[in-house]
Amino acid sequence: MTDASRPERYAYLGPRGTFTEAALLSIPGAAEAEHVPYATVPAVLDALRREEVDSAVVALENSVEGSVPATLDELATGEPLQIVGEILLPVSFALLVRPGVTMDDIKSVASHPIAQPQCRRWLAGHVPDAEWHAATSNAEAAQHVADGHYDAALAGSFAAARYGLSVLVEDIHDVADAVTRFIVLRRPCAPPEATGTDRTTVVAFIGEDHPGALLEILTEFSVRGINLTLIQSRPTGAGLGSYLFWMDFEGHVADARVGEALMGLRRVCADVRFVGSYARADQIRPEIRRGTHDDDFTKASTWLESIRG
Amino acid sequence: MTDASRPERYAYLGPRGTFTEAALLSIPGAAEAEHVPYATVPAVLDALRREEVDSAVVALENSVEGSVPATLDELATGEPLQIVGEILLPVSFALLVRPGVTMDDIKSVASHPIAQPQCRRWLAGHVPDAEWHAATSNAEAAQHVADGHYDAALAGSFAAARYGLSVLVEDIHDVADAVTRFIVLRRPCAPPEATGTDRTTVVAFIGEDHPGALLEILTEFSVRGINLTLIQSRPTGAGLGSYLFWMDFEGHVADARVGEALMGLRRVCADVRFVGSYARADQIRPEIRRGTHDDDFTKASTWLESIRG
Repeated sequence: MTDASRPERYAYLGPRGTFTEAALLSIPGAAEAEHVPYATVPAVLDALRREEVDSAVVALENSVEGSVPATLDELATGEPLQIVGEILLPVSFALLVRPGVTMDDIKSVASHPIAQPQCRRWLAGHVPDAEWHAATSNAEAAQHVADGHYDAALAGSFAAARYGLSVLVEDIHDVADAVTRFIVLRRPCAPPEATGTDRTTVVAFIGEDHPGALLEILTEFSVRGINLTLIQSRPTGAGLGSYLFWMDFEGHVADARVGEALMGLRRVCADVRFVGSYARADQIRPEIRRGTHDDDFTKASTWLESIRG
Repeated sequence: MTDASRPERYAYLGPRGTFTEAALLSIPGAAEAEHVPYATVPAVLDALRREEVDSAVVALENSVEGSVPATLDELATGEPLQIVGEILLPVSFALLVRPGVTMDDIKSVASHPIAQPQCRRWLAGHVPDAEWHAATSNAEAAQHVADGHYDAALAGSFAAARYGLSVLVEDIHDVADAVTRFIVLRRPCAPPEATGTDRTTVVAFIGEDHPGALLEILTEFSVRGINLTLIQSRPTGAGLGSYLFWMDFEGHVADARVGEALMGLRRVCADVRFVGSYARADQIRPEIRRGTHDDDFTKASTWLESIRG
């Protein structure tokens, strides 16, 4: 619960200057909120669970590298939290160095592990001899550069000022139009109102693996004309053959077609966790297939009542 | 409506001595009812529509020859009637002749057109030179034999006494264990109570043909674990590309999985006609797939309400 007498508090993956902080700052009204950095994704989520903050922002997937396993696993099997919003941020790195350092001086480059493969080709082409080092965040990489541990960091250009560094090269990325998807989390709550351009996230648990298990699940969506936007299988950790599917799809839990698909999923899966329904950042409106509008469900239900006599 | 002051009245495909009459006589309590023969399937159904009778019995399908098109088309597109029961009768013909006639005397054999292909091989083997003639019913064929028009009739052995004929050969059929399925009809009404071994019949109309139309319909059943027992496509008569599917499947309209499948069908089809839910004559209990029991639907619905907040 938000205490009206104090500003909204957000946890995010710090330190200051991360892409996550940039994502958080893009939330309307977030500039007036309090931002509390944590060192790891689990720490961010635990802060929310312990009610140290009202909301949390973490990365969920990157269009080049795929999903962020730590976030997925925590939300799928940790103490439940709910996605209430998402943010898309273009992936574009800057090469940050201490003032005066030139390309020829760079023998080491640090970044978050997810940044490295996204700049792999650029690094090979421009600083082929530099050694790459992992940091827990791009901002931490910048801090290490400021401290003199490494020569350069791949980070958001917005991190330069914060760490007293210079932007040597801007707009580094191997793939054009790459974006990172961040999610805004709260403790379990009523979902935000449907906007017509929503996304829903659930985790489906397969208790005992059997042939056709995935097809069975996908059919629950396809038969109601629902388009999946992300699917990731992950082991649950409860032994071989026990796994889960993280699924994002078009629509809101309040939509009739989504409700029926979720009930279908609930019936055929060992368990289903509802992770949230929220407005899509890209505002893409789903194509609602003939026969799957709310109105079609209402009419069909009225008809069924009539024939049941 | 049945008038309590007079016996139940049944219309059936006559004349007396048909397999349909034998099917009707097998209905519990039907011996005390009034039986009114009509010359054709449409005449039987119209008598029920015009309220000349309370119920009607007609053949729907034969395990050797398939469905009876006249019955299917009338029930699919004529003024609605409802199936409230079914009867299975073994297909077994007798060769009926005037007393004293022997196999060597037989130069002509009459029967209903559906009987002929079921005895084709037997006829070819035993009376290869006899000419076959169509009659509007097997009983009418027997009448023609009694009248001296033909030498023999293929009919139920129970028809012999009625027409003063002798049974020359019994138990004639090319295929072992063949059965005919008859249905009991009433004017539209509340379906009989579910028994746990029920069948439901619907007609689905495809307004505009499109690729995958049949798969779309079948998926509505398969995703809810419902097994089809009969499917027949027929033109609706409303022009090329406009057709319908007659579908019989396991379960009762009161079952949750059936209700949801029917609503699904109603949403994706141009129109759906409910033709009836009724006890199966063979009393075969459906295998209800994991997750499709009524209880599973109830639990899923409760869960959905909880996550919708």
